Amino acid sequence: MDNITNPHTGHFIGVDLGGTKIDSILVDQNNVPLDNVEMLTCPEEGKDAVIERIIASINKLAAGLPRGVDDVRAIGIGSPGPLNKEKGTVVDAPNLRWKDVPVTSVVRAATGLPVYLENDANVAALAENRMGAGRGTKNMVYVTVSTGIGSGLMLDGRLYSGTTGAAGELGHVTVVPDGPMCGCGNRGCLESLASGTAIARRAKEVASRAAGAGILAAAEGKIEKIDAVLVSCCAEAGDPMAIAILRNAFEYLGIAVANIVNLLNVEMVVIGGGVSNIGDVLFDTVRRAVDLRAFPFMAKDAKIVPAALGVDAGMLGAACYAMERWSEDYA
Amino acid sequence: MDNITNPHTGHFIGVDLGGTKIDSILVDQNNVPLDNVEMLTCPEEGKDAVIERIIASINKLAAGLPRGVDDVRAIGIGSPGPLNKEKGTVVDAPNLRWKDVPVTSVVRAATGLPVYLENDANVAALAENRMGAGRGTKNMVYVTVSTGIGSGLMLDGRLYSGTTGAAGELGHVTVVPDGPMCGCGNRGCLESLASGTAIARRAKEVASRAAGAGILAAAEGKIEKIDAVLVSCCAEAGDPMAIAILRNAFEYLGIAVANIVNLLNVEMVVIGGGVSNIGDVLFDTVRRAVDLRAFPFMAKDAKIVPAALGVDAGMLGAACYAMERWSEDYA
Repeated sequence: MDNITNPHTGHFIGVDLGGTKIDSILVDQNNVPLDNVEMLTCPEEGKDAVIERIIASINKLAAGLPRGVDDVRAIGIGSPGPLNKEKGTVVDAPNLRWKDVPVTSVVRAATGLPVYLENDANVAALAENRMGAGRGTKNMVYVTVSTGIGSGLMLDGRLYSGTTGAAGELGHVTVVPDGPMCGCGNRGCLESLASGTAIARRAKEVASRAAGAGILAAAEGKIEKIDAVLVSCCAEAGDPMAIAILRNAFEYLGIAVANIVNLLNVEMVVIGGGVSNIGDVLFDTVRRAVDLRAFPFMAKDAKIVPAALGVDAGMLGAACYAMERWSEDYA
Repeated sequence: MDNITNPHTGHFIGVDLGGTKIDSILVDQNNVPLDNVEMLTCPEEGKDAVIERIIASINKLAAGLPRGVDDVRAIGIGSPGPLNKEKGTVVDAPNLRWKDVPVTSVVRAATGLPVYLENDANVAALAENRMGAGRGTKNMVYVTVSTGIGSGLMLDGRLYSGTTGAAGELGHVTVVPDGPMCGCGNRGCLESLASGTAIARRAKEVASRAAGAGILAAAEGKIEKIDAVLVSCCAEAGDPMAIAILRNAFEYLGIAVANIVNLLNVEMVVIGGGVSNIGDVLFDTVRRAVDLRAFPFMAKDAKIVPAALGVDAGMLGAACYAMERWSEDYA
């Protein structure tokens, strides 16, 4: 690979720090992926062990370059939030069991490289905007729907992360003022109505009724086996209750997306995350809600499309974020 | 005034085009107001007559400068929307009875000056950010609550107006999915629940019941005399129904503001417009909703404050917009 053997080119490493895995990628200065490494996070071993694995991933990727880490310009880390970007700390990430962890300074000290920390949904938004479904758009929102719901905002061509880097908490906008309790303590948050967790909970509630018999049968009679994927399979097989549960959930997602369109007048809403793989019923329901609820002249300009980068969006976005921030700071 | 007699300084004119009045202001290159002119809009006389009055206002202000319009660098017009900023047209403004009016090109042809068109809530947001309540903030939303509800977004220190210039339609975000019909054709829009019009409608509904007797008495028995100001007076006098109507309306406003805080992580939400003069009951209710519904770490950073510039925000913001756009284009 010429990019690796040419000492005059710069490389960037992106780390996607998740509760289960640490996915890291090495890219050249044109964002072309050269190599990647996957490690288990094992958060139960404590934060020091997790950070050690982040550093080991970086060293492993850098080892393929002629001068090792000296050929790497910067590292980007996409992490669950909230973050304190000024201090470079992860403030609170239950999946990692982390509270106020100064991951940036530890990785910087170990590698001698600039380290840039950003929210995982934000770096995924950047990746989808620069090289994914939203390529070429100036104003785009990336929405991720999985066990939770998050979003990242690309506005006027740049990642908008807000005053303390916490913008994009779409999962916790109120959609139904007196709706179900959410894990955050508020009522009627989008996440409590349209996430994979919410879909599974609703399906479990109905499984013991006659109308939910199809779902219960698909779970072989075991309510605890019901999850969003199973509901989706039932819906594809034509089960009316499963279809109703999904439509209901995605109607709420559609309201939130319509509100984004009215507020931010974006060109595109990119929807990713595990639940988005359910496909047509999600995209059709969201599209209808946007057409119904957003102003026609804004709705018609707003494409609603599936994400293109899948689970790679996190590490690709983290590398891309490192490159863009490094260019601002040093180039 | 030295600024006027010094031929080397540049001046800017801001025009606030409303359904009732055309308010115009002349400022120097430091945004210092030098003179202003007020004319009636009289939209019933047709668009040509209205544009003539805009041009007459500009000429009157420029006449006070040594070289007339030659001492003016650019003109900003704040107009009700939606606008087509690329074409410089007002797409649809019911208050003006305008549809697809090319106001920018007509004023440009008559004055020979660059003319910049922007939404009225957006220029007011710019004014509050540059010289009003939001001075010094980087991320700020301006919300105007009067007969309708609108907003303007200042993000990363700049006016964010979206893909076609229509961002900030806060009045038409859905707050109650199956709520009352809104003039826009959607259900449960913020404007249908929390605007001056919504407050008056709700008060008229209850006026014929026993609980609404106080409001009806204040209107001297004439239901048609009930408006948001009267409801506010009744609330101040301690009428429990009037207080309940206001609290209910501002609770919905608070939900929309909490959603903005969660989505945009702003430092400040500035609330202006006629209804905001109701004061404490509005600000206290909105503050409580934000504390209840937004993430604590974002809620605590978000100040909720009254607008500082009152009805002058429109023309001041239009002048400021002209200056900033002119600087980008020519300076």
